[in-house]
This record gives sequence, structure tokens and C-alpha cells, in this order.
Amino acid sequence: MGTIDGIFIGVDLGGTNIEAAAVQDGQILASKKIKTRAAKGAEVVINRIEKASRAVMDKLDAQPGEIQALCIGAPGAVELETGVVNSAPNLGWKDVPLAAQLQKRLGIPVFVDNDVNVGTAGEFTYGAGQGEEHMVGIFVGTGIGGGVIINGQIHYGGRGAAGEIGHMVVVPNGRVCGCGKRGCVEAYASKAAMIKIIQEELEQGRKSALAGLVNKKGILRLSSSQIGDALAAGDELMIEVLQDAQFYLALLTANLVNLLDPDLIVFGGGVVEQLGDSFLEPIRDKAVPYYLQQADAQRIRILPGTLGDHAGTIGAAVIAQRRLVL
Amino acid sequence: MGTIDGIFIGVDLGGTNIEAAAVQDGQILASKKIKTRAAKGAEVVINRIEKASRAVMDKLDAQPGEIQALCIGAPGAVELETGVVNSAPNLGWKDVPLAAQLQKRLGIPVFVDNDVNVGTAGEFTYGAGQGEEHMVGIFVGTGIGGGVIINGQIHYGGRGAAGEIGHMVVVPNGRVCGCGKRGCVEAYASKAAMIKIIQEELEQGRKSALAGLVNKKGILRLSSSQIGDALAAGDELMIEVLQDAQFYLALLTANLVNLLDPDLIVFGGGVVEQLGDSFLEPIRDKAVPYYLQQADAQRIRILPGTLGDHAGTIGAAVIAQRRLVL
Repeated sequence: MGTIDGIFIGVDLGGTNIEAAAVQDGQILASKKIKTRAAKGAEVVINRIEKASRAVMDKLDAQPGEIQALCIGAPGAVELETGVVNSAPNLGWKDVPLAAQLQKRLGIPVFVDNDVNVGTAGEFTYGAGQGEEHMVGIFVGTGIGGGVIINGQIHYGGRGAAGEIGHMVVVPNGRVCGCGKRGCVEAYASKAAMIKIIQEELEQGRKSALAGLVNKKGILRLSSSQIGDALAAGDELMIEVLQDAQFYLALLTANLVNLLDPDLIVFGGGVVEQLGDSFLEPIRDKAVPYYLQQADAQRIRILPGTLGDHAGTIGAAVIAQRRLVL
Repeated sequence: MGTIDGIFIGVDLGGTNIEAAAVQDGQILASKKIKTRAAKGAEVVINRIEKASRAVMDKLDAQPGEIQALCIGAPGAVELETGVVNSAPNLGWKDVPLAAQLQKRLGIPVFVDNDVNVGTAGEFTYGAGQGEEHMVGIFVGTGIGGGVIINGQIHYGGRGAAGEIGHMVVVPNGRVCGCGKRGCVEAYASKAAMIKIIQEELEQGRKSALAGLVNKKGILRLSSSQIGDALAAGDELMIEVLQDAQFYLALLTANLVNLLDPDLIVFGGGVVEQLGDSFLEPIRDKAVPYYLQQADAQRIRILPGTLGDHAGTIGAAVIAQRRLVL
């Protein structure tokens, strides 16, 4: 398969921010981050994606014609062929023809993909997964998302819905997940789940300095960096909840190893970026006893992503480049 | 990718029987089943594979030169490139150069693959999975094995160990599995596990007609057809143990759907062949509530294999044909 070289724009479309970056060979040449303003509706958000993309071109002193293609990583379910975002709860979107709208405005090929697939493609091509064939990306943030790379290609599945790693069940009849099902790994190991579990413990009278982070409405606010602070301060509740999260992520990791025999599993997302390898070390230790082949402990690497925040824009540019030649 | 047409021999190498079949376009032209005699050592077993293969050629009145290639599905871990069986506990084999030995004797290309991959390839190419792209095969017998087909190809993983579906954990800190780990689906839903659970219940005084199947040494013997009989007789213990097995197979199914978004999942193996779709119906019903996308309930098919016993030989012939042109 050939590839077309040149400059590609990758857009990371989030519920809070839009970041656009001009990328060449995995290097960011220029970037622009602005607020998403999702509450103002899809039309406004699409305008803002165009604005961020044009700002990046302006920084490079480039015309749209000098950009080969653009890809947007969207937080939801997308239809790859048409570039329609079928559903993006964080944006309040239903069936938004994102690619067609932007392509009309910018006059260059525009593709849309799921944000976690995009992040996985970024880490695979220019981050922790470089040079490998089979990789799973696990992104631990407010939720848990995943991407599967088989033979160097994103595995989309029969209708583009593969990679819903956060909703693999790790506890039969377990905690209720945001999706309504019971026992999903996201119900134990996502940031939102950890906050919910801590809040429940506090409400039952458990002592912890984290009680000081509960606001007047009775809601616990806990950023990834505050999780890091609480761990550093030796807060027992935080340590316990994190250890449980790591145990379930370890079961998930072992299940992926036994099923897919990947070359590596890369963890990314806010929690991992904040806590780094100290978050992964217990996951490795707890996963290995669940590998069917103990030799896998040496061979299969469990690594933090190396692109951090940039996995989304770089990955979107990677997909723009790949899709252009398909 | 081109394929070479003609007659291929597929060999299903089991702990008890060796079956060889001459196969053309998914049709068995002739076959021969003989005892494995594993206790007599690898040399004897290889002689017997040769014997069964030559018997098939004799039935066809064919010379080895008229057979394009031969593939053996072996019950264990194999090295695809060399055709060495690294480990096959049921045969007592360690590092047996099976392909090289047989190739020398027969003078035709010989390949070796894992028996469950072979069965999955058979069902995919000529059985329940015909015309699809992504499929998972789950074989429920004494143990539980699996095979993963992505983009029409068996997914072997980084070192050929993918598809160990039976050792995906469905219960944290659950029952001890034959592999030594805790909570594997094989520890709940394989025939060996169901027998073990029933035996434990009987030992604790649980009433069941199954007690009549315990032999003088105190060991419960239960064939797949006896499982069917006990269900038909309404034995409560059998029904309960089977329902638990089906629940865990449903969780496994949903996890595979959420991760891989396959076109279909095909169940095979002794228990499924015996009980047929009545075994799968509860698995479908229990899996669907765990799908992230409820629309998948319509789209993703959960089917029994259609090749039955022949999945192994037909699948091995499929792999012989594919590997010949690689």
C-alpha cells in the first residue's frame, strides 16, 4: 500500500476543546486549541472546527490546497464511509454529517473516525507502538475507551463498533455502569467510577481527606492531578479504590492477552498521563498471573502512551493519510 | 490472493482418534478414522497419521503427488513456520517436529496448526461463517477453545497464541481452572467443569439422578449425550449447572461482541453438537442485555456450527490450501 506524503490536519474534537494540528510524518508543525461550545449546537461546533483548522493553516502560511486531507476524531459512534457522526452524547449530536459539511467549506478531503481509534492509531504509528503489528490501546479518563490494531490496521469490526473495551464485563452482576449494564470495567476503573465509589464510601462515613473536595451540593470533584496528590499523601480510601481499579484493568489486560496475543498494550488518557508508569506497574503485576502462557510476561509489553495529549491530533492525521489512499 | 485448486488432506489429530480426510472445495471425498495410541509415543502417532493419510489416498486411488498439501490440526501450541508442536498435553508431546517428519514420509507439503483454529477456519469457509469477514469460533467440549477470524484470516497474534478464549476470566477470584488460574470461563462452562461442579454438589448431599452415574471409584462420568438425557428428564441439578455455564458463555459472547464487533459467533464442540440450538438460545438471550449497542442483537448472529465433527478435517484442508500459496 502506498501513502501520499505531505501535510495533514488532525482534529481532536472533545466535549470541552477542539484542537487542530498540522502534522507531517508524525511531527506537529502548528496547532490551535479553542473551546468546543457544544451547547450552541452542531452548526456552531462545525464552524469552530473550520476556524481552528484555518488558524493552523494561517500559522503555516498555507492554503487549503497545500493540505492533503483532514481527519476529525469524534467522541462517539461514526459512520466511516460517509463521515456522519451517528451519536456523540458529550456533544449532544445525532446523525451530524460532519465530513460532508467540512469538506464543502475547506475543499479538501475530510474523514471522521472515533476519537479512541484515532488515539490508538497515533500511539501505534508514532508513539509507544512503533514498529509493531498487533496492539490494543486502552484510554482511561472519565470513561474507558479502546482501540484494536491487527496486522497494522485499526480493527473496526462488522459495523465500525469494535473496541468498546470499557464495556467488557469483569464482574458478573457487578456495579451499574453509565451504559446501564452491570459489571463493565468502566464501572470500576474509569475516573468517573472511582469518584462515584469514593463518594459512596464518604457518604457511608468512611474517613478520608478527600471529603474536603466535596462541594456544597454534596458532589465530589476530583481531577487526575488531585488523584495523584491523594495517593502521594497516602490517603487510604484513594489507594484502595485505585488498587481495585488496577485489579480490574489487570483482568481486562490478561483477557486481551489471552484472546488476541498482541505485541503490546498501550495505556493512555488523563489518569495515565497524570500518574504515569506508577499507575501501570501494579496492572502488570496483577495481570501476569492471569496470562495462560507465563512466557508472555516477558514478551508482551504494557506501556504508557508516549504522545500524551497529542495522540488525538497526530492519530487523526495518521488516519487522514491512510484513508486518502484507500 | 490466488489459491491452488485440487485435493487437500486435512487431519484432525485428537487425544483419542486421528481422522484424515481428502477434501476438495469443502467436500469430503474420502476419510479414515483410526485410534491415536498417544501413550505409545510421538513416533507411533506420526506413523499412524501417515497410515490414515495413505488409507485416504488409497480409497481415492490417488498417489501422494495428486494431493496438493496436507495440514494437521493438533491439540496444543504449534509453531506455524516450522510445523513443530511445542506442547500438546493430551498427547504428552513437547517440541515434536510433526510437519517435517510427515513431509519426509509423504513427499508433499505438510502444515500444522492448532485444532481450534482449524475448526474455526472450517466453519468460516464452508460452515456457518460462509461469506462473512469477522467471526469468532467457540468450541465447548472437555475444555473451551476458540479461534478469531479478522478480515477473513485467522488472527494468530504476535506468537501464534491468540484465541485462548477458554481462559478469559469471567469471575474475579472465581473457581480454580485446570490451567491453575482462577475464574476462567473454562472453569464454569466446559464439560469437565460442569462435571466437577455436579460432583461437588452430589458430594455435599444434593439430590439428583446424576448420582447414578458416579462409578465405584467415586468419579462422575457424564457424556454429552447423558447431559442431554438429564436435561430432557428435567434434572434440576443438571439444569442449574447448565444455566450457569450458559450465563458465563453469554458474558463471554457479549465481551467478544463489544470488543471485536464480529459478524457472527459460531459455537461448536461436543456439547453444542449434542444439544444443538437449545444450548445456544439461552446464551443469546442472556448475552444481548450486555451488548453496548442493542442493535447488535439483530445484526450479530450466534449460531451452532454446521460441519459438526467434520469441522476439523475440512478446516485443516482449508488451511493447507491457504498456506500453500502464502
